[in-house]
Formats: sequence, structure tokens, C-alpha cells
Amino acid sequence: MENAEIRNLVLQKVSAAKIASQKLGLLSSEQKNAVLLAMAQALEKNSEDIIFHNKIDVDVAKSQGFDNALTDRLTLNEKRVKEMVKGIRDIVNQKDPVGEIIEERTLNDGLNIQKIRVPLGTIAMIYESRPNVTVDAAALCIKSGNAVILRGGSEAINSNKILSKIISGAAEAAGMPAGAIAFIDITDRTAISELIVLDKLIDLLIPRGGEEFINFIKKHSTIPVLSHGKGLCHTYVDKEADIKMAVKVAVNAKCQRPGVCNATETLLVHRDIADKILPELCSKYGELGTEIRGCPLTKAIVPTVVNAKEEDWSTEYHCLIISIKVVNSLEEAIAHINRYGSKHSDSIITENKERAEKFIKEVDSAAVFHNVSTRLHDGGVFGIGAEIGIATNKLHARGAMGARELTTTKFIVRGKGHIRN
Amino acid sequence: MENAEIRNLVLQKVSAAKIASQKLGLLSSEQKNAVLLAMAQALEKNSEDIIFHNKIDVDVAKSQGFDNALTDRLTLNEKRVKEMVKGIRDIVNQKDPVGEIIEERTLNDGLNIQKIRVPLGTIAMIYESRPNVTVDAAALCIKSGNAVILRGGSEAINSNKILSKIISGAAEAAGMPAGAIAFIDITDRTAISELIVLDKLIDLLIPRGGEEFINFIKKHSTIPVLSHGKGLCHTYVDKEADIKMAVKVAVNAKCQRPGVCNATETLLVHRDIADKILPELCSKYGELGTEIRGCPLTKAIVPTVVNAKEEDWSTEYHCLIISIKVVNSLEEAIAHINRYGSKHSDSIITENKERAEKFIKEVDSAAVFHNVSTRLHDGGVFGIGAEIGIATNKLHARGAMGARELTTTKFIVRGKGHIRN
Repeated sequence: MENAEIRNLVLQKVSAAKIASQKLGLLSSEQKNAVLLAMAQALEKNSEDIIFHNKIDVDVAKSQGFDNALTDRLTLNEKRVKEMVKGIRDIVNQKDPVGEIIEERTLNDGLNIQKIRVPLGTIAMIYESRPNVTVDAAALCIKSGNAVILRGGSEAINSNKILSKIISGAAEAAGMPAGAIAFIDITDRTAISELIVLDKLIDLLIPRGGEEFINFIKKHSTIPVLSHGKGLCHTYVDKEADIKMAVKVAVNAKCQRPGVCNATETLLVHRDIADKILPELCSKYGELGTEIRGCPLTKAIVPTVVNAKEEDWSTEYHCLIISIKVVNSLEEAIAHINRYGSKHSDSIITENKERAEKFIKEVDSAAVFHNVSTRLHDGGVFGIGAEIGIATNKLHARGAMGARELTTTKFIVRGKGHIRN
Repeated sequence: MENAEIRNLVLQKVSAAKIASQKLGLLSSEQKNAVLLAMAQALEKNSEDIIFHNKIDVDVAKSQGFDNALTDRLTLNEKRVKEMVKGIRDIVNQKDPVGEIIEERTLNDGLNIQKIRVPLGTIAMIYESRPNVTVDAAALCIKSGNAVILRGGSEAINSNKILSKIISGAAEAAGMPAGAIAFIDITDRTAISELIVLDKLIDLLIPRGGEEFINFIKKHSTIPVLSHGKGLCHTYVDKEADIKMAVKVAVNAKCQRPGVCNATETLLVHRDIADKILPELCSKYGELGTEIRGCPLTKAIVPTVVNAKEEDWSTEYHCLIISIKVVNSLEEAIAHINRYGSKHSDSIITENKERAEKFIKEVDSAAVFHNVSTRLHDGGVFGIGAEIGIATNKLHARGAMGARELTTTKFIVRGKGHIRN
């Protein structure tokens, strides 16, 4: 496809989505929920067809030598289709964020001022592998009254095409303005370059993927970006930790699901407790097949560990590897986290409340935990409902983001001829 | 000054501000208010000195042929110093946004989740002419627990230098961490280019100035930008308007202070009421020295008006000029505003509530007004307190922004060894 042709196709879909967004923003909660339920039903009904098309992607991936983790992320089966359907139904049951009156005041002279929640308008998602993002993102955008432009990775193109066809067809039949769910079915990367400069038509861009990809988008996009960046999370075992609890939490934080962003990558241990906890903890990690990269003090206590290098402190392993550092103080632990962490999720294990509060105050991350596994940074646990991701930036939204974070606000001022004196 | 030297100086101040921000964020409300009161007192005490240094800038401006409006914006006198002092004292009396618990939930198993408000960290302001911004911005940043890096325009360099010296000296003596108010006293524009790429050290960039300047910053900054862009505001007189009220509000919206962003630039009038209101309204505008640029239908009713050109609908005059267009319907008015407006402040004058609600819902602006002058888009009126500006973007903050909009959030999760199952 010629670049000019790609530009035209992208522009056409995005323009249509922009127009649709104006109508979509006016739908009632009931109308939006009806659209969502129709989407869920259509997915259920077409489960076989979805799995058939997904198999094409999976076969291509296998033939191209994708590793098991990637192929797994790509695969849809009956259970996963059911999960997507359940995800939509959960979103239906969430409160509609649109129209919420956040603040209201009436002045003595009768001037009434409201600050209410309104849709952003149009949201573009650029993502990789997992085809369920197509469905989750569309459902969260519809719930929050936004049109959505989806651009999934080429490896999932057949899955994404069938999914977006099914959900947008069902949604339009149930009253969604045509074009409000737009799927860019162009695998050429030029489509991304064309998309990310349409700042007059797109209000928010959400990229999901590796660090390099996110940095590329941030650098070249003229649309505001909310990024779901890397998760370099820490668990710090304080000198006053309950050792049994610390082992349980530290093992869970690393091993329960190592491939996700809220898994712990680096364990920090106070030197006063290091020789009491490290032998047991390292043996537990070993049993679970976890490779340990330790600082010299860790190695002095557990000689079998690998020597950690400087770059280990800033590496998100995404697998069963953990780095361990013995620190001299709570202050050193906090400084290490603020220096090497990704401001995502960090936990302290201690029985001392004052030390916990110092950690909570001084660690500059989206979520800080006391005696809790970092793995609990989750929209469901936090009461947000389905997540569109976990934001590691500080503006607009920080941490787990749901439908509410896909809205903006509007001041509404009602008077009787009020003027400025 | 060599570019490398400028880079070093900027980097030094910003690094110091970043370190100071970590301590500043831990100060109590009382400690921050003591700092603010010391700043106010020092300005009061040094009023003469401030005015003396300001006169140097004003004299240079006059000798360089600055126009009266610009010279006026630059000038500080006793009254204006008093206003700055009062501004700080008002901020002292505002509620501290930091530490506010926005949401809290405790799950059945005892896991407690709070979402609290915390400082952003470091904020850079780049602005022009008015030296009071130096004081206002510093005070709002201190209130919200943020270190601030200030870079004012070269035309106000002597005023800004003395103001920042006075306030940062007094603030540090009263307990503010050293370096938390940093003023970049380099008038070379290289200082701006160096500043706007320090995304590892600065959390938020707020540019204030003309459209071209803002666009330059947006394009080149790697730091998230909240911009206070242009204010192309509309007043729409509906066919069911109370004519007396419409004249009063439309005159106020344009003429009460035409140089500011919430003044109305374009008046839209429904054709069914045009011949009833335009003769009186245009004569009022004429009395106040306002030039009128009208569409053909306006000219047919009031032949003395100048013919409006296409570019008039997208021009922010910033002075006593107004464009007037007669529209065929409420829908046309809404479409005109969404097309040509800057999503700032737009008002409908009508006695018909349904038509007002349609306008309120469909006009996509930071603030929409019913029977109210657009000039009332103001932090004081809205209960926000002192403003750092009026944001026309949709992310993070929209409309009048105060200290609270200079914060972010943090999830705090407290448990008893909770793990993910």
C-alpha cells in the first residue's frame, strides 16, 4: 500500500470516529449498557468463528518461531472468549462516570457552578499481541462515552479483525453511532506514524507495549499520551519485618505471575535481618525455579547466588529472575527505589508503623504497599473495575486506570444575567 | 554566555530544585503556610526596592517602543505589590490539597486501599511580561508542595530577579528547603531549549504566552505540558433570549476587560431575534468604542458595521473588536463554536431551559455558561482560589486551575501479609 493511501484510510476512519464521538457522548447510561450487552452476546455467539481466525495468527506465530510466552499471549480459546464476555458484563455493572457532579457551589447571588465529568471524545489505542485488548479497550471507551480507534499488532491481525468486526457490528445494531469503534487493519507501521499526529481529531493516545515502542510514540506523537510503561517494582524487607510474612509476600510478589508489570523485580533486605531471612527465602525461590542475582552481601550469606551487575537494578526481567540487594537502612532502600524503580508498585514489609509510614510518604510511586504483595496493584482489587492499564506517569491518571480515567471535566455555570463587575 | 555554560547553569538549578522537592513534599500545611506568610511579609517590606527595579524594565520597554498595553502589563506600583501580597495571603487561607483522601475502601479480608493527593514534584513555568506571575506561581507551587523553576521573559528580567530573590530568601529563612524556588536568570532563549528537555527532573511544564510560543514548547518539550492557550470565546444570543439581559451580558463579555482570555470575541445571534437586538447592541458597542465586524446578515440590519472575513471567526482580538454572525439555528451556533472556538468559555443567552441544556451538553469547552458572561470563568468565582491559569487541554486539568491541579495521586495499600491468589 502506498503511504498516501494509508494516510487516507487512517484519516477517513479517524474522522468518522470523531463525528461518531459527538453522538456517542450524548447516549444515556442505559443506551451505552445496551450496546455493551449486545457486544457481549455477539462474542458469545461467534466464539467458534473467533477461535478459528485466531488459529491462523497462532499458526503463523509458531511457524515464525515465536516463543511459548508470546504464543500464549496471542492464543484465544473458549475460556478466554468467555473471559472477554465476562469482562464486558462487569463493565456494564460499573457506575457510569459520565455526568457525575464532582463539585457544586451556589453563590449568594444565585450563580450556580457545577464541575461535571464528560467523555474525552476520541481515544486511540496502539497495542501488541493480546487480542483481548481489542475488546476490553472498546468496552471501556464505550462505557465512558468515547469513540475508540484501535491499532493492534500485525501478529494478531486476523484475531483483531474478526473481533472488531463482531463487536462493532453488534454495537451499531444496538444503537452505537456508526464508526465509533474503528479498527485500523493496516499492519504497515506507516499507519502508526499517520495516526499519532492527528491531534485535531484524537484527544488521547494510549500505547501499550515495550519500553522502546512507548518511547518512540512519546517522542513522535502530537496527541497527549498516557503510557503504561515498565514495571520495575520492589519489595523491601525491613529489619523489623515478620519473617514468615516477609517470605510469603516476597515469594508471591515475584513468582505468582512473573510476566506482568506489578511483579517484583528487585528485593531489598535490611542488613540486620538479611542472615535471618535470606537462606530460607532463597531456597524457596530456588524451589520455584527462580534465578537469583545478588549483591556481594547477599552472596556472602547465600553463596550459590549469581553476582548481580549494575544493570540488574534497572532490569525488568518479566520472568523467574530476581535481583537481591542488602541495604544499610530504610533510607537507602527508599533512595534505591526512587533511583532505579519505574514509579509503579513498591512494598515494605515491617511490623513498625512509623517506618512503614516513612516508606509510604517518601517512595514516589503510583502505588505503595505495607505488608502487601505488589501483585495486588489491580483495578479489580482497587475498586476501579476493568483496567485499561496501569499508568506510570503523574498527570491525569496514576496507577490502575478504569473508565473514569477516560473522562475529562467541564464547568457548567448557570445564572440570571450575571456579569463581571 | 556559551551554550554549554547555559546548560550547566540550568541543570544545576533544576537538580537542586528536584532535591528540594523531596523535602518540600514532606512539610506540613502549617510549615508551608509559615513559608508563604514570610514571602508576603518580605514583599511588603521591600515594596520600594521592587518598584525601583521594575522601573528599569519599564524604562527599557518604553525606550524600545513597547505599546501601552504591554508596558502596563509590565508595570509594578504600590497597589500591584499589595495585590501580590494579598494573593499570597489568600493562598494561605486555602485548603491544603496535599494529603486529601480522595477515595478509601477496606475489603472483607482487611485490605485497606486509599487514594490520596500528593505533590507532583517539580514544576517549571515559562512566561512572559507580567512579573506578578513569578510570585503567584511560586506561592501556588509551595502551597501544593512542589518545587518550582521559573523562567520569565527578558523584558521583565530586573523585576523578576528582585522578586524571586526576595521571596526565595524569605521562604528559606522560614523553613523552605533551599533551592525549592529556582529562578533562571538567563535571558538567552537557549535556556528555554535546555529546560524543556529535562524530563527526568521536571514533572510538569506550564507555558504561558502567545499561541506561537505555546506551540513551540508543545512541539519540543519532552516534559508533559499543560498549556494555557488562546481564548476564543463566544456568546450566543438565542431566539428565546431576554433581550435586555442579552445586551447586558454580551456587552460585559466583550468590553469589561477585552485583553483577557475569557472575553468574548465572537457574538452569534439567532436570525429570529437579530433585527430586534442588533441595532441596540451595536449602538452600545459603538458607544464603548468597539469595532464590529459582521456577517452579511448583520450588515443588512446594521449597515455601519465592517464586513467580517473568514479569518475573523478564528481571531482572538484581545482588544475592542467583536465579530458578529447571524445563525439559522441553535445547531448552527453549536457547530460554529465547536469548529472555530478554542474550547475555553462559551455562553448561551436564552429563557428556554431545554435549548440551554442542549447547548451545555454539545458545546465541547472547558466552561459553558447559561445567561452568564464568559468573563466569569475565574478561579475565585469557581471556588478554586488563586489560579495558575485556565487550561484548554482536556487531560489532567481543564478550565481554571488552582493549587489542587498541581498535585497527582498515590494509592496506599495497607495489609497483613496479603498476597495474590
